[in-house]
Amino acid sequence: YARYLTTMAHKDIVFRQLFDGTSFTFTYLLADAKTKDAIIIDPVIEQVERDVRLVQDMGLNLLYALNTHVHADHITGSGEIKKRIPGCRSVIAEPQASADIHIKHGDRLKFGQFEIECRSTPGHTNGCMTYVWHQKGMAFTGDALLIRGCGRTDFQQGSSEALYDSVHGQIFSLPEDTALFPAHDYKGMTMTTVGEEKMLNPRLTKPKMDFVKIMKDLNLPYPKQIDKALPANMVCGVYDIKAAAI
Amino acid sequence: YARYLTTMAHKDIVFRQLFDGTSFTFTYLLADAKTKDAIIIDPVIEQVERDVRLVQDMGLNLLYALNTHVHADHITGSGEIKKRIPGCRSVIAEPQASADIHIKHGDRLKFGQFEIECRSTPGHTNGCMTYVWHQKGMAFTGDALLIRGCGRTDFQQGSSEALYDSVHGQIFSLPEDTALFPAHDYKGMTMTTVGEEKMLNPRLTKPKMDFVKIMKDLNLPYPKQIDKALPANMVCGVYDIKAAAI
Ligand SMILES: [Fe+2]
Ligand SMILES: [Fe+2]
Repeated sequence: YARYLTTMAHKDIVFRQLFDGTSFTFTYLLADAKTKDAIIIDPVIEQVERDVRLVQDMGLNLLYALNTHVHADHITGSGEIKKRIPGCRSVIAEPQASADIHIKHGDRLKFGQFEIECRSTPGHTNGCMTYVWHQKGMAFTGDALLIRGCGRTDFQQGSSEALYDSVHGQIFSLPEDTALFPAHDYKGMTMTTVGEEKMLNPRLTKPKMDFVKIMKDLNLPYPKQIDKALPANMVCGVYDIKAAAI
Repeated sequence: YARYLTTMAHKDIVFRQLFDGTSFTFTYLLADAKTKDAIIIDPVIEQVERDVRLVQDMGLNLLYALNTHVHADHITGSGEIKKRIPGCRSVIAEPQASADIHIKHGDRLKFGQFEIECRSTPGHTNGCMTYVWHQKGMAFTGDALLIRGCGRTDFQQGSSEALYDSVHGQIFSLPEDTALFPAHDYKGMTMTTVGEEKMLNPRLTKPKMDFVKIMKDLNLPYPKQIDKALPANMVCGVYDIKAAAI
């Protein structure tokens, strides 16, 4: 079968990793090169113009704007994208957040000849999803698994026990050569693989008890953007709420 | 044949795009997954620790540290990498710059079962090289061609006429699905293709005369890092010169 192993500018797909340098967020554009059906994962509101332009320049038909979770560090671009691309539907797992489609573990989203499997990976937040593209051997892990790291577990119903089980049960169980694309990286790395993280992740290679202690001892500062980002993201980042929350 | 089309986490290669958020520079790590022989393109001095660690974590044997040109906006990491990885050789085209290997148009650099073709693409600087990985349908364009843009041509023997000819003759002549990886991007884009730039590049799709006028009218400010970066890069970014130049 064809995996990420066969990819990026692969003739049958369009794949682009995009970066927001302010919040250090990665956005991903995935498309069927033949049918032009596309999805975008974790768009950032400040980058909507760039992203919509890329979609239009490539002649893509954007079906879904997916969020891996309700972000605390930036406002989602899904609401703004929907305004500019009528027909595009917003997708999230969190039932409290407004969106066109609420997905749950095991759901599949189709675009052209491809599909994404939704895997529930709670721990950073309760509603965190990892999107797995089995056909290309790629997974989009949101803040569950980062490159040599993981998302914090000290707010938004975070749970280090749940995060550990999510990563080991739902991500490390994928084939070792699966390419992993996180929602963030702060050191200029862009991707990793299951095999690499199983060997090199300084937190998640530890026994569960040690991991829980590591996470407890982090003592991270209160996230700067959270009071603005959370309420906005609960309503898909639509503009009036954004303005009200600033 | 196998192209970039079959890539990234492809079983027979290791490929990583790395980013320096201060100078907006991309560094690329390419390796033969079987023999572990590797090369790095345009390393940045501030990121040497990260890059060397990645090389070591992946168990790679770094043969060459290549520079696409004598950069004006950051100091190359090649000198520092050589200190930490004995046996790694620095590579550049510019005959005035010190390096272990001075390449010229048409040269090929081998790593494992793979090789890179060096194509002279002057215009941003006289010694600019584009490194083409034909086997994987990838090319590393340095500052000759950027995503929807190009490098400036107003210093370091820059020439907009030469740049135009370089891009059209040496880059746009590659197959349309060739994936292009620039030395910089300032908007969070990470790659493009020959086909895309031939259609969408706002400067290089124009006739040569218009391109020359566009470049002439840019009136860019004097580059902030140039007085520090140029002398350091002429000697491979070695530390004592860096300190002297600051
Ligand atoms: Fe988050
Ligand atoms: Fe440059």
